[in-house]
Amino acid sequence: MSLALSLGRRGQGRTWPNPAVGCVIVKDGRIVGRGWTQPGGRPHAETEALAQAGSAAAGADVYVSLEPCAHHGETPPCAQALIDAKVARVIIAVPDIDPRVGGKGSRMLSDAGIAVEVGMLEEETLYDNAGFFTRLAHDRPFVTLKLASSFDGRIATATGESKWITGPGARRFVHAMRARHDAVIVGGGTARKDDPSLTVRDLGIERQPVRVVVSRRLDLPLISTLARTAKETPVILCHGRDADPTLMQTWRDLGADLLTCEASNGQLDARDVMRQLAEHGLTRVFCEGGSALAASLIEAGLVDDLVGFTAGLTIGAEGLPSVGALGLSHLEIAPRFALQETHRLGNDVVHVWRSVPR
Amino acid sequence: MSLALSLGRRGQGRTWPNPAVGCVIVKDGRIVGRGWTQPGGRPHAETEALAQAGSAAAGADVYVSLEPCAHHGETPPCAQALIDAKVARVIIAVPDIDPRVGGKGSRMLSDAGIAVEVGMLEEETLYDNAGFFTRLAHDRPFVTLKLASSFDGRIATATGESKWITGPGARRFVHAMRARHDAVIVGGGTARKDDPSLTVRDLGIERQPVRVVVSRRLDLPLISTLARTAKETPVILCHGRDADPTLMQTWRDLGADLLTCEASNGQLDARDVMRQLAEHGLTRVFCEGGSALAASLIEAGLVDDLVGFTAGLTIGAEGLPSVGALGLSHLEIAPRFALQETHRLGNDVVHVWRSVPR
Repeated sequence: MSLALSLGRRGQGRTWPNPAVGCVIVKDGRIVGRGWTQPGGRPHAETEALAQAGSAAAGADVYVSLEPCAHHGETPPCAQALIDAKVARVIIAVPDIDPRVGGKGSRMLSDAGIAVEVGMLEEETLYDNAGFFTRLAHDRPFVTLKLASSFDGRIATATGESKWITGPGARRFVHAMRARHDAVIVGGGTARKDDPSLTVRDLGIERQPVRVVVSRRLDLPLISTLARTAKETPVILCHGRDADPTLMQTWRDLGADLLTCEASNGQLDARDVMRQLAEHGLTRVFCEGGSALAASLIEAGLVDDLVGFTAGLTIGAEGLPSVGALGLSHLEIAPRFALQETHRLGNDVVHVWRSVPR
Repeated sequence: MSLALSLGRRGQGRTWPNPAVGCVIVKDGRIVGRGWTQPGGRPHAETEALAQAGSAAAGADVYVSLEPCAHHGETPPCAQALIDAKVARVIIAVPDIDPRVGGKGSRMLSDAGIAVEVGMLEEETLYDNAGFFTRLAHDRPFVTLKLASSFDGRIATATGESKWITGPGARRFVHAMRARHDAVIVGGGTARKDDPSLTVRDLGIERQPVRVVVSRRLDLPLISTLARTAKETPVILCHGRDADPTLMQTWRDLGADLLTCEASNGQLDARDVMRQLAEHGLTRVFCEGGSALAASLIEAGLVDDLVGFTAGLTIGAEGLPSVGALGLSHLEIAPRFALQETHRLGNDVVHVWRSVPR
């Protein structure tokens, strides 16, 4: 099952809106088939593994990280394919919560006389597929927030200089993290100041994450990397109802997808932005700042994972803070995160945290 | 020698203005004497080790982290004691740079027919005794700056609430660090806001570090822990020439030592503060903030070691920054530090850095 999970993770960032499932078929102690959800969400992991196993699947044990589907979607149900292949036993990490599947896949298998076990490595699998589950259960994507700062918590000098605070190792790590998410999201200020491409570079991936910019008024530079490349790699712009219609049309012509979001207190409502992105099919979103967007996500309790990079330099209090104003009245109510791991990466410290529910 | 160094470290924070030396005497492959500089700086490590070895010192090898002294100070010269004990060989980690010793100890030993080797584990020893060497060579103590902040670099909420940002493990670590320094230093703002005791608690140490507060105008609360305890545990107040003479007398009566320091641009000059502390005999100083003092030390290039604690919570941009304004024009000239180690401590990340010379 551990192997099935690691196969499943290969699909992270590339299978949305589908989950990234892994499947391993074992016959007489030997692995006869391995599969994972392919880019775009199909073929499913089971299909891939069964194709590899061929006739060896008969009488075999199948380890699959998510309950096989039972409904006719764009592909025939995997539960049926497993029955047809005459497997002996199916071990499932977690049941699906998609109402079209939820228990039906398991029942279909049991009814066909196949032994079914559910719950192996459940916690790990739930985390690996948190994007898929969060979208279905909470109508929003799983959000990872990256904060890369000087050790006094600054992401740029007062004049906006930010290249480079962290070293090449940390920057490569960020590209790997982008690749494991469906989308990379930044605020309008960051898009204006840094002219970012937000793509994954030097990792040989075939499917780039979607680039998302949150900008209430759509006042983004039309001569920019994002504008120039929107036709090649998807760009989604989340804007308010008061955005200029001409600007909206211009961005559509450039190839961007536009999502109209609700605003409150003069800025876009982070919850509605996330709801719309989930609606669009995104399950895992990687936020790279700036301070205002980071603060609004934290404040709304929308940050699930936090990845911090601390670099060996000081910028001082005039520098740009990593997180904007949160309006905290007491330390007691500060949003808290549990440390998952920390290690050095070149001259930077990487620390990974998971949200502690309030 | 490695053992001699670790014995020497036992004296850190307790031997000033003397170095914390360690000494191991080995005869026929067995350790016959171990010693380290005792609290207050005497007896010296060699004296202790020789007393333990007794007649077994004759013909033995002596490992000592610093060149034995050759001058008659308050104790007779250690070099002479080693000669009298008829040791065969003395292995020295680093030569002393005190002009009263500098090579004379080694020469005295050689002249008496004892084999002398110098330079074993030199780098490690120089670091262990950086306080002693920095004071002699640069007329200032070695400075360790502690920054304990939320992961967005804040040390308190806008209203000054700071208890607790880090967990109990990190706070215990801080007490252990205090114990390894001659003095703990804070700015006047921190002394006013937190009413700190700045002592080492729950570690069973006998000699507390000196408590130093930097306050140009001496406008510190007279009803405070520091005021109440100044007669038991030393308090040094660094103030400007414009401090109120009545206040100065009051603090003297309370038991504090007063050091008059130069000011520039309305605040005390960090370099002069450190010069005066070195003059007073302090070799290792542990700075615990606040932002203004941290910034002035960093800006003046006076921070040698930096110990960061990153806690799993966000406070937001209204919070108090860990480092005050530095007046940086470019990222290129930001003060830089090299990562020495990082590990988790409870739910906090500890990261230790060493200054990179500009």
